[in-house]
Amino acid sequence: MFEQLGLIGCGLMGGSFALALKRAGLVRRVVGYSKSPSTTERARQLGVIDVEAPSALLAVSGSDLVLLAIPVAATESTLKAIRHLVGPNVLIMDVGSTKRDVTDAARRALKQDVGVFVPCHPVTGREVSGVDHADAGLYAGKQVVLTPIERTLTAQLEQAETLWRALGCSVVHMSPDTHDSAFAAISHLPHLLAFALMNAITGQDQGASFLSLAGPGFRDFSRIAAGDPEMWRDVLMANREELAAQAGHFQRALDEFQRLLASGQTDELQRLITRASDARAKWRMTSGAEAP
Amino acid sequence: MFEQLGLIGCGLMGGSFALALKRAGLVRRVVGYSKSPSTTERARQLGVIDVEAPSALLAVSGSDLVLLAIPVAATESTLKAIRHLVGPNVLIMDVGSTKRDVTDAARRALKQDVGVFVPCHPVTGREVSGVDHADAGLYAGKQVVLTPIERTLTAQLEQAETLWRALGCSVVHMSPDTHDSAFAAISHLPHLLAFALMNAITGQDQGASFLSLAGPGFRDFSRIAAGDPEMWRDVLMANREELAAQAGHFQRALDEFQRLLASGQTDELQRLITRASDARAKWRMTSGAEAP
Repeated sequence: MFEQLGLIGCGLMGGSFALALKRAGLVRRVVGYSKSPSTTERARQLGVIDVEAPSALLAVSGSDLVLLAIPVAATESTLKAIRHLVGPNVLIMDVGSTKRDVTDAARRALKQDVGVFVPCHPVTGREVSGVDHADAGLYAGKQVVLTPIERTLTAQLEQAETLWRALGCSVVHMSPDTHDSAFAAISHLPHLLAFALMNAITGQDQGASFLSLAGPGFRDFSRIAAGDPEMWRDVLMANREELAAQAGHFQRALDEFQRLLASGQTDELQRLITRASDARAKWRMTSGAEAP
Repeated sequence: MFEQLGLIGCGLMGGSFALALKRAGLVRRVVGYSKSPSTTERARQLGVIDVEAPSALLAVSGSDLVLLAIPVAATESTLKAIRHLVGPNVLIMDVGSTKRDVTDAARRALKQDVGVFVPCHPVTGREVSGVDHADAGLYAGKQVVLTPIERTLTAQLEQAETLWRALGCSVVHMSPDTHDSAFAAISHLPHLLAFALMNAITGQDQGASFLSLAGPGFRDFSRIAAGDPEMWRDVLMANREELAAQAGHFQRALDEFQRLLASGQTDELQRLITRASDARAKWRMTSGAEAP
């Protein structure tokens, strides 16, 4: 049980975390701050936070738990802004989709206090953003990746793990670099492809009429293209090296398909599709009760 | 009300059509044929068809409605096999995902009788195949594209339209070429990208561990990669020219993203993501009660 959550960033991810924590009876009070005062006010009106803080620093004051739920590029400046209220008994976590840049930012900003910061990536999200979509059930049944560094304190790491499990999450540990390679492949690259597909279609004269015919396959494939632009700009930039490596793997696979199509090698084409289809049919989300 | 549906191809699409027709009380009897006798037998056991036919020709015998629910590449040989039982009072339809190749095949196979063939593409499907997944609700609320040619008979066209509407579908008409351009963009290319992504990931040593971390975004994006390999081999091959054109549009959009990432142009990157995100957020499936 935490006395006070200092929530920095009262959007979809942060707001949902606050609601989940409250529903689980794990926190007495939530003090929230968002860059936009109207977001903070809305979060209080919705009961997502109890008290509006006029700054990140004041949200941290008196908090034994702090969550950063902000674009990853804002991590360093935010941690610098709260640094002199960071003591050894606080647990600070984030929910960012990239981890090497976040851990580097934490090292630079928190220096000798970096041990209280546990880098977290809950593998969840929605195609809508904003506190109005905050949902106490957003995290339940999902995976959370923790990427502790050598200086992370064991006490905080265990506290974080216990907390996420209490919200119904399964927890895995890995290095920030391994995390970033994996998520370049399974998340950042798919987002990039979905963004590029939308722009490729809407850039054509007939784009709107094409889209009017699209069905459930397109709906699911393109859902992630509706992601928050500012957040995804930061994620793609922060992880651009791993993303470029994964885009290279993808490009070679795509070129191979196109070569077979151009040369009419139908047997080999079917073999490649079968490999993809079998792999996808076999795949199941590790956690989460949802159907694949 | 039809006396007898001759169902050629008792898989997911054909089986679901038979069940939907029966549920709507639109057919007295369903005679089914599949290339694999065990599929035909299974379809009868499940009540999807009433009578097993040992050949496509015998499924057509006595039928006033014929549905081809087979890989598009089998259209010409199948129509040739049934041709001499095709009279002026039958309605023949297909459910293929490409239309120029299908209409060309119908012209060649049916010659002066091609007018009774109404090319149809119901925009639906699932990531599983086979008669065991046949579902009377597969077509309800979906769009069906009809691509009549200049020789298509008005009577058959109206019959087809009335039939699909009775199954709860909305019906649009366009030329086979327009259809194929549109579906290259909104369906065939997304499938190709999803296949290539799966192969790009599983081709890496860490592919399996990457996949174990994937969440709901990946699940939705990659769902279509589990499509039936034989069907998709045919669709991609049949529409490879339009597909190559759409892949060109996509490649240019992707290259633009990669250029901005490499050069760190974050403002321009955000602008491109915003364009994609806004377009996807605005898009709604034309028909279908499902959420986008």
